[in-house]
Amino acid sequence: MTDAIALTIHARDGAARTGALLTPRGDIRTPAFMPVGTAATVKAMRPEDVRATGADIVLSNTYHLMLAPGAERIARLGGLHRFMNWPRPILTDSGGFQVMSLAKLRKINGNGVIFQSHIDGSRHELTPERSMEIQRLLGADIQMQMDECVKLPCPPEEAERAMRLSLRWAERSKAAFGDDQPGRALFGIVQGGVERTLRIESARALVGMDFHGYAIGGLAVGEPQADMLATIEAVIPHLPDTKPRYLMGVGTPDDLLQSLRRGVDMFDCVMPTRAGRHGMVFTRAGRLNLRNARFADDSRPVDPLSTSAMARDYSRAYFRHLVKAGEILAMMALTEINLAYYQDLMAGARSAIGEGRLDAYIEETRRGWAEGEAEET
Amino acid sequence: MTDAIALTIHARDGAARTGALLTPRGDIRTPAFMPVGTAATVKAMRPEDVRATGADIVLSNTYHLMLAPGAERIARLGGLHRFMNWPRPILTDSGGFQVMSLAKLRKINGNGVIFQSHIDGSRHELTPERSMEIQRLLGADIQMQMDECVKLPCPPEEAERAMRLSLRWAERSKAAFGDDQPGRALFGIVQGGVERTLRIESARALVGMDFHGYAIGGLAVGEPQADMLATIEAVIPHLPDTKPRYLMGVGTPDDLLQSLRRGVDMFDCVMPTRAGRHGMVFTRAGRLNLRNARFADDSRPVDPLSTSAMARDYSRAYFRHLVKAGEILAMMALTEINLAYYQDLMAGARSAIGEGRLDAYIEETRRGWAEGEAEET
Repeated sequence: MTDAIALTIHARDGAARTGALLTPRGDIRTPAFMPVGTAATVKAMRPEDVRATGADIVLSNTYHLMLAPGAERIARLGGLHRFMNWPRPILTDSGGFQVMSLAKLRKINGNGVIFQSHIDGSRHELTPERSMEIQRLLGADIQMQMDECVKLPCPPEEAERAMRLSLRWAERSKAAFGDDQPGRALFGIVQGGVERTLRIESARALVGMDFHGYAIGGLAVGEPQADMLATIEAVIPHLPDTKPRYLMGVGTPDDLLQSLRRGVDMFDCVMPTRAGRHGMVFTRAGRLNLRNARFADDSRPVDPLSTSAMARDYSRAYFRHLVKAGEILAMMALTEINLAYYQDLMAGARSAIGEGRLDAYIEETRRGWAEGEAEET
Repeated sequence: MTDAIALTIHARDGAARTGALLTPRGDIRTPAFMPVGTAATVKAMRPEDVRATGADIVLSNTYHLMLAPGAERIARLGGLHRFMNWPRPILTDSGGFQVMSLAKLRKINGNGVIFQSHIDGSRHELTPERSMEIQRLLGADIQMQMDECVKLPCPPEEAERAMRLSLRWAERSKAAFGDDQPGRALFGIVQGGVERTLRIESARALVGMDFHGYAIGGLAVGEPQADMLATIEAVIPHLPDTKPRYLMGVGTPDDLLQSLRRGVDMFDCVMPTRAGRHGMVFTRAGRLNLRNARFADDSRPVDPLSTSAMARDYSRAYFRHLVKAGEILAMMALTEINLAYYQDLMAGARSAIGEGRLDAYIEETRRGWAEGEAEET
């Protein structure tokens, strides 16, 4: 496989590294957080404002886009970048995870998954070949193999079955991705639940197939943080140092710091955007629930050190009023503040790695959460 | 009354005039459209983006703010401008109109209105004195007398009763406004339904009381456009030429053009913002309903001549997708496009009046709606 999308590492600090993933659509500074733009929009954000928070890449969901407005339609309209007016890199998932979590009457077999749309009940089939075809039609810069992600906890035999199926789908995904997509990348996904031996077997087999990058899937699905971190520690040594490592669907700010410290380069999570739509805001002083009555007369800004003007130029009392009144501006503002917080966190980590002081940065950051008005719930 | 807020007229074209209302918080170019920010936010818009559409002033609603978060609270937090981060002029209504249209178990008497909150059923009383106190606490630059607005059609006796009550409340409002609010203005409101003689009597009585400006209330409440325009034509000659004239709660783009042509200086309406939250967009080619299936593959922008980038940089197909998916970005984008359209319309009218070609401008604008894909519904 050609390394159309290449990782360059600028500095290391322990197992952590910082650098950039170079793509024809722009560089992705790593460690990177990718905001989730499920239905071709990062909810409640204009793309230029997503960019202004510091995002180099966004993620979009194959499952949602295949159902509406349809991959062929987006292709006719010039591809996903043009459709959503985001000229920078886009990563798409395979659709498999959301078929299993959102669709109705899903039935998995060796070939793929047959399911009914959660929107209108229409019948669809997703196979590794169709998933890759959709991602190609969308024009995604980073495409993901189709895999099966089991819920945790699960019996080892079930984790093993899904891992082996995912390996077969990895081969089929790679064949379908082909060698005619210059400047685009395909990532394999390590599965195996929290079984160390399964995870290592999965990683080795995928590396043998030679992907442009490697994801760790199936984590942050209900297991304790310690299990997640142990799994990351088990897998990382078996992944090539020169390729990007992507931890899928993770997580809290602390999850991100603990994981990048162990060598993860890329993250995505709905947490900052979803929390922002529900009155929760991430700050240097921990997470605040702006529905709380104690903010009703609080004239202080949400986070005076934020890079987002929304966090500096309005009072907590104002946002509390907007949240209680169900105003759209609350969702817009808190989403932006949260995305800026996640990007600021990554920027801080990149600097700290460059200066060889990542552990001190993590310690300072955690102290801020603890000393502030954290109300982690 | 001191003319703290002064109207300066730059040019005239027939009964129409263009100029500016000079206030300590900035000039309001007239004819002016005021976006509605009911609960201290123009829904789905950041204040800097409201300003970027060309708005010099916004309106906010006394009824909503007195219920939540409360006028005394906003005053403690530094006033409404600081609360909503809008440093430019703000006009507040008296609350009377919305008590009658939104509140439960309302009971009007000579002193004021007793009602229950539509939010939590709590009991409140609104009088001219309390309305003015609230508007003072909010720090509104332009404050409105409390009046009673009847629904049309209504019997002449009912229109007369409400008009006379409104005159008594005008006197009480003026006394309560006082003479200790430099740089702020109080407007009287002409009532009288569609009864020409009542309207003229109301206008003359109010002018005798000497307000900073005069509003025409109780229109666009169900009557034909012709009745509205006839009422405006009847009232305008009885208002002082040197004072601003504000047509409350109106209306469609055509309503605005027809009314400013008759000498109206100021407008407010929820139409552009409400329509934008429901997939309707105002363009130079008429109003489009983006829910319509005919836009599913329409790669054209919404309005290539709009001053809003949202109207130029995205396809109709994209917005149709967002509207159908219930995405917040649809509400944000279409609200902005609509507000920009209304402001562009006012800017065009101001230029046309300055050049003595208002009728030609109105004709060109209406031709655009007719020749385009208008689907006025």
